[in-house]
Amino acid sequence: DCKEEGATSADPYSSDPPRHPALRVNSQKPFNAEPPSEILSENFITPSAFFFKRNHLPVPRVDPHAYRLEIHGLPRGPVCLSLEEIKTKFPKHTVTATLQCAGNRRSDMNRVKQVKGLNWGISAISNATWGGARLRDVLVYAGYLPGSSARHVQFEGLDVDPTGTPYGASILLGKAVSEEGDVLLAYEMNGEDLPADHGYPLRVVVPGVVGARNVKWLGKIVVSEEESQSHWQQNDYKGFSPGTDWDTVDFKTAPAIQELPVQSAITVPQEGVVLGAGQGTVTVQGYAWSGGGREVVRVDVSLDGGRTWNVARLQHGEEGGAAPAPPNRSWAWTLWELRAPLPPGARELEIVCKAVDSSYNVQPDTVAPIWNLRGVLSNAWHRVRVRVSED
Amino acid sequence: DCKEEGATSADPYSSDPPRHPALRVNSQKPFNAEPPSEILSENFITPSAFFFKRNHLPVPRVDPHAYRLEIHGLPRGPVCLSLEEIKTKFPKHTVTATLQCAGNRRSDMNRVKQVKGLNWGISAISNATWGGARLRDVLVYAGYLPGSSARHVQFEGLDVDPTGTPYGASILLGKAVSEEGDVLLAYEMNGEDLPADHGYPLRVVVPGVVGARNVKWLGKIVVSEEESQSHWQQNDYKGFSPGTDWDTVDFKTAPAIQELPVQSAITVPQEGVVLGAGQGTVTVQGYAWSGGGREVVRVDVSLDGGRTWNVARLQHGEEGGAAPAPPNRSWAWTLWELRAPLPPGARELEIVCKAVDSSYNVQPDTVAPIWNLRGVLSNAWHRVRVRVSED
Ligand SMILES: [Mo]
Ligand SMILES: [Mo]
Repeated sequence: DCKEEGATSADPYSSDPPRHPALRVNSQKPFNAEPPSEILSENFITPSAFFFKRNHLPVPRVDPHAYRLEIHGLPRGPVCLSLEEIKTKFPKHTVTATLQCAGNRRSDMNRVKQVKGLNWGISAISNATWGGARLRDVLVYAGYLPGSSARHVQFEGLDVDPTGTPYGASILLGKAVSEEGDVLLAYEMNGEDLPADHGYPLRVVVPGVVGARNVKWLGKIVVSEEESQSHWQQNDYKGFSPGTDWDTVDFKTAPAIQELPVQSAITVPQEGVVLGAGQGTVTVQGYAWSGGGREVVRVDVSLDGGRTWNVARLQHGEEGGAAPAPPNRSWAWTLWELRAPLPPGARELEIVCKAVDSSYNVQPDTVAPIWNLRGVLSNAWHRVRVRVSED
Repeated sequence: DCKEEGATSADPYSSDPPRHPALRVNSQKPFNAEPPSEILSENFITPSAFFFKRNHLPVPRVDPHAYRLEIHGLPRGPVCLSLEEIKTKFPKHTVTATLQCAGNRRSDMNRVKQVKGLNWGISAISNATWGGARLRDVLVYAGYLPGSSARHVQFEGLDVDPTGTPYGASILLGKAVSEEGDVLLAYEMNGEDLPADHGYPLRVVVPGVVGARNVKWLGKIVVSEEESQSHWQQNDYKGFSPGTDWDTVDFKTAPAIQELPVQSAITVPQEGVVLGAGQGTVTVQGYAWSGGGREVVRVDVSLDGGRTWNVARLQHGEEGGAAPAPPNRSWAWTLWELRAPLPPGARELEIVCKAVDSSYNVQPDTVAPIWNLRGVLSNAWHRVRVRVSED
């Protein structure tokens, strides 16, 4: 039988790991934190210590030797795999993929009207190289056959609430078993064992899909006709109209967020900084990304609040790095930069960015019309105001 | 050898077919016309006579008995198929798919600043049921094998310009050969032979992809490492930043449009109509659609210019019709309706709609920031102003 482990101390958070002191903490228990945003654009691959942390529950401490992954819902019956089996029975694949929390940039929505959720800035998004077995290979090994009536693959974490209920989520079976879906059961992050905060010893990485479905400390997989019935799949992480409030919301009416819409933000300069007019130019940097493997094809940057636009230079991968991603498998973000002359005489700049993806989807202009009661999917143009001094 | 036919008269347009007189004509030669927009929301399946017509060149008159489709670029060498062979060698599939011209709603862009192109209103979009052979089946029959270095499938029409150059376009090979791509070589539209304006006797239907790649009067298919080198693939039907003008544009810097972004428009009421206050309610109708098989999951409608929003009722298919489309194969549009009380005392309404697709992509608020020199990809919120009279 499969054995699971959890925290045993009086404070379930007492076994949480140490974290980098530079992180901006949104919640200590559970731990939720984002890096200083300028760090994002300094590294195409976000160092693991700075990768945003989004925990829903205490971090479980898992003994890698006792660890077992259970797989249910396939015709030949349950399958149980040790970590060693997952590492040795299946070819190791690496995928560079950006993960983004559904609540990234929620603080922009809070400025319109208070929403329910952690007050994330622009850095609940990071990019890493993940290594592990393909979920497809593991499911085929466990007996998956095409043509079943199953439609979903459910994941349960080893992180549990005080009643013993684990974190859970699901993705579409089609994504899980696609040759081009690149879904991993990852045991490595940036070339090392997964850190405790990122799901040690095994997590799901679902490229192109909202962070919440990339279940960490993976304990169980269930192939099913149904979505996960977890709180987070059914009654959270869904988008609603700005006119929908907590009195009228019916979570059944909206689909669970899977692929995320096109996104971008300015990491440099930061809001409120003072630029020296003597420099003559301004350098603007940031990130852009889209869900579903859609590539970022253009980033427009305005220095005048959106009246006129310049096209940023895109950095699609590491300089001198790998070949461009195949179509619809562009899982990593695109860092970008614009160097432009300071508008003569300007005392203040309202810098704005907006990205375009390979389906030519664009970001909406303003936040209020996409405001929603959970503060998710916040992808309006990002705006930063800076001053110019005559020093 | 394959034989192709073209128009032979002095006026190459003299063999163009008759058209329905209710169409709004944007160009006679080549013929480009759209239906009255209220007809769109009256029919989930657009009657073929009202389906928008977008011709780049004269309509070729093709003898179905002499017709041959050439297929090039596969390892076993060229293949030639008669219409009868296409109809009998391959299973017939039907797909209900919406086609939209890249220039739909270009008139909204012209109101910002003049662009180059036909002045389409909101009706360069229509929905039909297409019947034909799957392109995948035909390519496999002709010798397609996975793992080739080809990346694109090029199409050439039998419609030619005065120099003999045919219309041409290409799509990604992955879309063409995918089991879930639903690309057809269609010989039927709404249960009848294709009309002359829609590609008789054979056209490509590429669900989820811009109209321009759905090549009509299909004469030749080339499986290739390269995109189509046609004008329409290389130097047209691409999106640019609003700051890019005809002096600075470099068509090589932008990808050819394939999947289109999320779109919606109001078909009822029309701009400028007068509603009777005595009715007490207003009924708003329209269409919504997104490219890439993404489903429309919500349409928000505002009666006050976008300050407050109501959620429209969605009609995903024919009433009492087929099961919902599988994930990412939602090729047909969604008609929608909102019945709402007239705001008390309002003398004028600014009705606005915006749609959300299954990747939670949304439409941009305004036109100017997505303005581009070719006037394509015009998908900002649609706005209609009506008056309310006290009669
Ligand atoms: Mo999240
Ligand atoms: Mo078009």
